Amino acid sequence: MSVTFDVFRGSPEGKIVADKTTRTLEYNEVFIETTHSGLCGTDEHYLKSGQVLGHEGIGIIKALGPGVTSVKQYGFHDFDNGTFSYGAVWDVNCVYPIPESVSSVDAAPLMCAGATVWTVLTEFGIRSTDRVAIMGIGGLGHIAIKLAVALGCEVVVLSSSESKRAEAIEYGASEYHVFRSGEPIKDFKPVKHLLLCGSGSVSYPSLMPLMDTNGSIYPLTVAFEPSPVPMLDVLFKGVRIQGSLVASRKGIRTLLEFVARHKIVPTVMTFPLTVEGIEEAMQTLREGKMRYRGVLVKEN
Amino acid sequence: MSVTFDVFRGSPEGKIVADKTTRTLEYNEVFIETTHSGLCGTDEHYLKSGQVLGHEGIGIIKALGPGVTSVKQYGFHDFDNGTFSYGAVWDVNCVYPIPESVSSVDAAPLMCAGATVWTVLTEFGIRSTDRVAIMGIGGLGHIAIKLAVALGCEVVVLSSSESKRAEAIEYGASEYHVFRSGEPIKDFKPVKHLLLCGSGSVSYPSLMPLMDTNGSIYPLTVAFEPSPVPMLDVLFKGVRIQGSLVASRKGIRTLLEFVARHKIVPTVMTFPLTVEGIEEAMQTLREGKMRYRGVLVKEN
Repeated sequence: MSVTFDVFRGSPEGKIVADKTTRTLEYNEVFIETTHSGLCGTDEHYLKSGQVLGHEGIGIIKALGPGVTSVKQYGFHDFDNGTFSYGAVWDVNCVYPIPESVSSVDAAPLMCAGATVWTVLTEFGIRSTDRVAIMGIGGLGHIAIKLAVALGCEVVVLSSSESKRAEAIEYGASEYHVFRSGEPIKDFKPVKHLLLCGSGSVSYPSLMPLMDTNGSIYPLTVAFEPSPVPMLDVLFKGVRIQGSLVASRKGIRTLLEFVARHKIVPTVMTFPLTVEGIEEAMQTLREGKMRYRGVLVKEN
Repeated sequence: MSVTFDVFRGSPEGKIVADKTTRTLEYNEVFIETTHSGLCGTDEHYLKSGQVLGHEGIGIIKALGPGVTSVKQYGFHDFDNGTFSYGAVWDVNCVYPIPESVSSVDAAPLMCAGATVWTVLTEFGIRSTDRVAIMGIGGLGHIAIKLAVALGCEVVVLSSSESKRAEAIEYGASEYHVFRSGEPIKDFKPVKHLLLCGSGSVSYPSLMPLMDTNGSIYPLTVAFEPSPVPMLDVLFKGVRIQGSLVASRKGIRTLLEFVARHKIVPTVMTFPLTVEGIEEAMQTLREGKMRYRGVLVKEN
């Protein structure tokens, strides 16, 4: 059985281009009609590559390969395929049923931004009794605050300006500090964990005074060039710099269950899932005006 | 009660100077007559500071503060006090009885070099089934090979030249590779753990191809300047860079027990614990000719 559907690709000129594609359903695959897709900063990186963009997709399973037996509302999470589309074909083992109580628009940002911070918050020994800092409030950072608060952590927010203070406190943060790379903060009680969700070009020497002994730094947004790290401080403080990218399938399922149980809702701006809507959303992100995750919605 | 004893300090001119010091024994302190002291690369860093050098000491308890009741052969491990001496006063809780079967000359290098690599090998999740690389064979590296082999790991040695191949294999390493920072190795099976025991100015980008997914790098010898780290590779591979300095008291006790049980013996060169002996040992280390840890021995 084959399916044909609309997709939106980037192009060498940096424009979004509408296209059609046809796929044959293999034994374990499903065809999902996309209804929502989050927009991630990495979509910008792949804009000129010509691939179908988007990797935070939510949709309805509409067709099954011969080995598949159930149909539900599903979220899909992958980096090699595109959810800026009206459909996609996926291995059924890589799609996740979305809980009834979580709306599709709220589920979309969980597939990448949410899953990324969830992995850090749950896989590397962070405890509910720990003091955890989130640096940078954007797509990842704002969800990290909400999740870490729900996990019971003492959450400290570091941002480059005062502009997001009220929202950070509203999301449950205990403290909000203005931090500019290279400028020390006064009277800062060191943290056990620091999630870097802001600028990739942060100065690591300026992070060291923020860290408690045996603390961990998680670089989630990174620069393309190597970052100078003061290894002497890393050594003396027993600091860990922990890379983390992939969320396990089990991790995404527990995230969805946790979010449903705690009624955690990403803060989103919606745009139409059209060429114009995608371009407007990307422009909003580029201008630093997204509060805090863009979600593209297919209009019926 | 007070004790007077000989000590050896560095000096601004970089010469070793003999001196005497007097200390009063506090409630929980003991006076240890030093019989052996290891020589560490950090002694070179403190050479011009005027402090009593040495922190890998072995000796006999000769006098007790009023709160102390037992007398044995003890090893002592601290970074603020000196074992290039004929004695030292320590809190009894910071000295460790040396097992009968471990000679003092073999015990000395365990107090810093051994304890440092032991902490990494036992406190950060390294398993006996893991492939572990030791980069740089010196005071730390050669003990790391012997300990990791005894822990049951698959041990891979990386060295900047062929000259130490036979010894590394004799110590139990499964593989020996010549690695020069910045030059890729062909056909290298990635490792789960990499202990950096050689030059502090290693190129982190050139380490990344050596690392398995979710692997860990432990910088034990570090440069004073920040090291450029390719965070994008750290992120994509889920690499951990783990600082580690301090050995716990429990850790040193388990190390001594493990070394006794496995009959692990550091490879040492001995020198007299005199001004001339210290200077000769330090010169040997400076010239890169130490095989592999210098131990200063008090002559009776």
